[in-house]
Amino acid sequence: MDDELSFWGWGYADRFPDDDERRELKSQVETLLGFPERALMDPPTIDDVTIPESRLTVPESLSGIVSTDTVDRVRHTYGRGYRDIVRGFHGEFDAAPDAVAEPETEGEIEDVLAWATAERVAVVPYGGGTSVVGGVECDPRGDGAAYSGVVSLSVRALDSVLEVDETSRTALIQAGATGPELNDQLAEYDLQLRHYPQSYEFSTLGGWIVTRAGGHFATRYTHIDDFVESVRMVTPSGSFETRRLPASGAGPDPNRLVLGSEGALGVVTEAWMRVQPRPPYRARASVKFREFDAAVAATRDIVQARLSPANCRLLDRNEAMLNEVAMDGSHVLVLGFESVDHPVDDALSRAIEITETHGGTVDDAPSSEGPHLSDEGDEGRDGTEGDWRSAFFEGPYKFDALVSMGVIVDTFETAVTWDQFPTLHAEIQSQVMDEMEDVCGAGFLSTRFTHVYPDGPAPYYTLLAPADVGRELEQWRDIKQVASDVIEEYGGTITHHHAVGRLHRDHYADESPAAFRRVLESAKSSLDPAGVMNPGVLLDADATGGER
Amino acid sequence: MDDELSFWGWGYADRFPDDDERRELKSQVETLLGFPERALMDPPTIDDVTIPESRLTVPESLSGIVSTDTVDRVRHTYGRGYRDIVRGFHGEFDAAPDAVAEPETEGEIEDVLAWATAERVAVVPYGGGTSVVGGVECDPRGDGAAYSGVVSLSVRALDSVLEVDETSRTALIQAGATGPELNDQLAEYDLQLRHYPQSYEFSTLGGWIVTRAGGHFATRYTHIDDFVESVRMVTPSGSFETRRLPASGAGPDPNRLVLGSEGALGVVTEAWMRVQPRPPYRARASVKFREFDAAVAATRDIVQARLSPANCRLLDRNEAMLNEVAMDGSHVLVLGFESVDHPVDDALSRAIEITETHGGTVDDAPSSEGPHLSDEGDEGRDGTEGDWRSAFFEGPYKFDALVSMGVIVDTFETAVTWDQFPTLHAEIQSQVMDEMEDVCGAGFLSTRFTHVYPDGPAPYYTLLAPADVGRELEQWRDIKQVASDVIEEYGGTITHHHAVGRLHRDHYADESPAAFRRVLESAKSSLDPAGVMNPGVLLDADATGGER
Repeated sequence: MDDELSFWGWGYADRFPDDDERRELKSQVETLLGFPERALMDPPTIDDVTIPESRLTVPESLSGIVSTDTVDRVRHTYGRGYRDIVRGFHGEFDAAPDAVAEPETEGEIEDVLAWATAERVAVVPYGGGTSVVGGVECDPRGDGAAYSGVVSLSVRALDSVLEVDETSRTALIQAGATGPELNDQLAEYDLQLRHYPQSYEFSTLGGWIVTRAGGHFATRYTHIDDFVESVRMVTPSGSFETRRLPASGAGPDPNRLVLGSEGALGVVTEAWMRVQPRPPYRARASVKFREFDAAVAATRDIVQARLSPANCRLLDRNEAMLNEVAMDGSHVLVLGFESVDHPVDDALSRAIEITETHGGTVDDAPSSEGPHLSDEGDEGRDGTEGDWRSAFFEGPYKFDALVSMGVIVDTFETAVTWDQFPTLHAEIQSQVMDEMEDVCGAGFLSTRFTHVYPDGPAPYYTLLAPADVGRELEQWRDIKQVASDVIEEYGGTITHHHAVGRLHRDHYADESPAAFRRVLESAKSSLDPAGVMNPGVLLDADATGGER
Repeated sequence: MDDELSFWGWGYADRFPDDDERRELKSQVETLLGFPERALMDPPTIDDVTIPESRLTVPESLSGIVSTDTVDRVRHTYGRGYRDIVRGFHGEFDAAPDAVAEPETEGEIEDVLAWATAERVAVVPYGGGTSVVGGVECDPRGDGAAYSGVVSLSVRALDSVLEVDETSRTALIQAGATGPELNDQLAEYDLQLRHYPQSYEFSTLGGWIVTRAGGHFATRYTHIDDFVESVRMVTPSGSFETRRLPASGAGPDPNRLVLGSEGALGVVTEAWMRVQPRPPYRARASVKFREFDAAVAATRDIVQARLSPANCRLLDRNEAMLNEVAMDGSHVLVLGFESVDHPVDDALSRAIEITETHGGTVDDAPSSEGPHLSDEGDEGRDGTEGDWRSAFFEGPYKFDALVSMGVIVDTFETAVTWDQFPTLHAEIQSQVMDEMEDVCGAGFLSTRFTHVYPDGPAPYYTLLAPADVGRELEQWRDIKQVASDVIEEYGGTITHHHAVGRLHRDHYADESPAAFRRVLESAKSSLDPAGVMNPGVLLDADATGGER
């Protein structure tokens, strides 16, 4: 049972922090953040959970692949956002799908979609189930209400690398493969995808594509969008398959309709992906700043110099402290360069030189021998980058432990142009902090840049606040609303890489061009005439068939 | 009259080669290519041209901006592909639009679209008029037949840089600005767009966006797609305006629907574009190869090493000869690096090292002082790059001169994965050469890579054949058909950066996913319910309203 996945929280069940670790965390929260005393609650067992009866009768022909088993349904109820963890922790699984389909072939997926279309069953494509925006939850009392049932369709059985083109450095990969699964198979060819979102261990290629995932890297080869050479999607009205091409100027790019479609148009089954050898050349350093504005200016200068660092992660002092990267009140810029072909020490030196003109001081000695952070297969974790890497992948387990002691913990992110960033950031700092104090009596907010562009950063915020257990979702909702409203008002996007799902649907409606939304609705009508595909993501369920 | 644009051919009328130049070219064609003796024909004068009566009566309210003047109509009849130049040269302007609109504001564009929608007038958005794929020609006897008239809508009056955000390095630019016009305005801020398609002097920002133009650079910052931060388009059903963002993961990217839309959805009026300072650091060299395969392998290794050259233009021996870059039978790889921030000599050295492992030898000495080719404002034109630059921008005038002596001259281009390139290239060489010999008795075919990607090159072909004057369009059509069929059969795309227009419509239909074409049709129905926007580009006119 060592590698059994948690049914209510992040990742592997046995990685949930034990009582000693949780007591230590509790004391940190109380002393370091000054939160009132927290009580440790025990995590649920699956026997504690009750869920509604399934509304569906599975036809004989699908009985081999569609199940109404309670445990299957529990395991496919929620994503892994704060709201999901809280409900899971309290054993509340009322939003469970009526059935879970686990097809092993594309033909079986087509069979499920045909049944769903005929019987008006909502279909929720499910990969790793790590959505933090309600992307895999179609509540039978909400978006799923107008349907005869909701089926969660897992693509996890489609987990193979089917073909590798070593000359073009591309691979045909099935959508259900997780990060480690696909990289293990590519290792045979000394190739890697090199896409490391925080959910890397559990999330799947298909999920990355439909949510436009952002990888770990700060610049250039980081968005899954840019790795997709071609894609295949099964829709209720047939197959949607693009041509394998390095580039094309023929009409609007059809891949870009699939990227970000969040399961509302069909089920992605496989894609030709651009892959890379492991980069043997690396160089890294971290630089401390006393002033956040100076650190921001240095970061902007580096990216506008087109130095293209693999890592260019600016942590404000709270974030540096939270991740135990710097406890002295410094803001820290973690820099890393890598190459498959040539040394990158000069690029690092030049980046450091730029930071120095803004008052930065190198923290740990620059190194060109250490392994790159978050590179699967690298063992070393020395220096600031190592601390950071460790925190990065362990973060979600700590997140669950915080939930278990009545702490509201959430992250939100955006992207904004450099000219608008200072105002947006100041408004977030003041309004979100004020709201946490109003609603919870205290709060903590930290910031990092996950990605940077010549025209703007992608700031990422982590918030912590002491919850009134029982009322925590209501409190969280108030805080989340303020954060989202500020982002919208001051020129950001509601999501840089967390996707829209159901959680960001209203703000997405405000942000996206009305004319484009009408196009999206008509695209959905064309590919999914019965409106059964993941109703309620991106668009209101009733705009896309849910109320028909 | 010095800067008057030619009504029938490329660019400025007075740049059409004089008789001496044309006689020299004629002798080259006859001796170097072995074509039968050619006769020089005189270019037409505008007085020779007769065009059909306009079918339209312009309403009083639009009389200030819509004209049925013959010269205006002649000047907006064709693009600048081979077929266009031949018809123009022979004074055939039967495809002339019934009227030309020259609005000066977005409001006036809305007025024209409202009239067109009400009166069922086809609207052809017109920028620089440099389409080589029939993108600006809606023949009243063809795609325009089902309409009460065709109006060509020029956006050339909207030619201003409206706003510059120096912090984010972005600028709000109107769609009708040509390359020199927008760069002249950006020069005030020491910024440039650095997008240099061959049509740079005459084509417009709006045209680049709707055709997904490729710039001069071989890698990275070259596609207009990547420069667009946000865009505004007037459609018959209202404005389509995206948010200014450096990046977003919120749903499918709305900018990507506009990019490549070729005027079929609306009229792009302005866009926030990512701009750059002039790069002071440059390094360049050219490398000769005896074997084409070795040159291809070297090019692939350079791009897969992610060296990101600004220029990485491989000319096969025919192309090198045609452009007078090398007359000794060598294939030539022209390499250039540039940076706004740091020296790029090391990158060039490394690239040269790679070419040497494939048997390449440096031709002109590497230089890090010379100006970069095709950089407006640089005067020097020394070395292979200088020769090449000169040929690049002069090429279209030579093209017209060839037409005037009965030579079929055309270019076609594609992109294909590296694994499929050798077969595609061999088939093009043999089938297109065979076809030229069958149809014209002789032919010449040369190749270059205009752009390169880690997963494949974008090969670009130039063909020359002796025409039977009077039958040349029929001959050309046969050759073009073979080239397009081979591209489709052997895994290429019908266009890497020339767009689809009307010329590539059938092959685009075969190449693009059927499901995506249905989406595109429904998008068009949503934004352009009367189907008046540029009917016949991308999709058949009758699929999008032309037959209603």
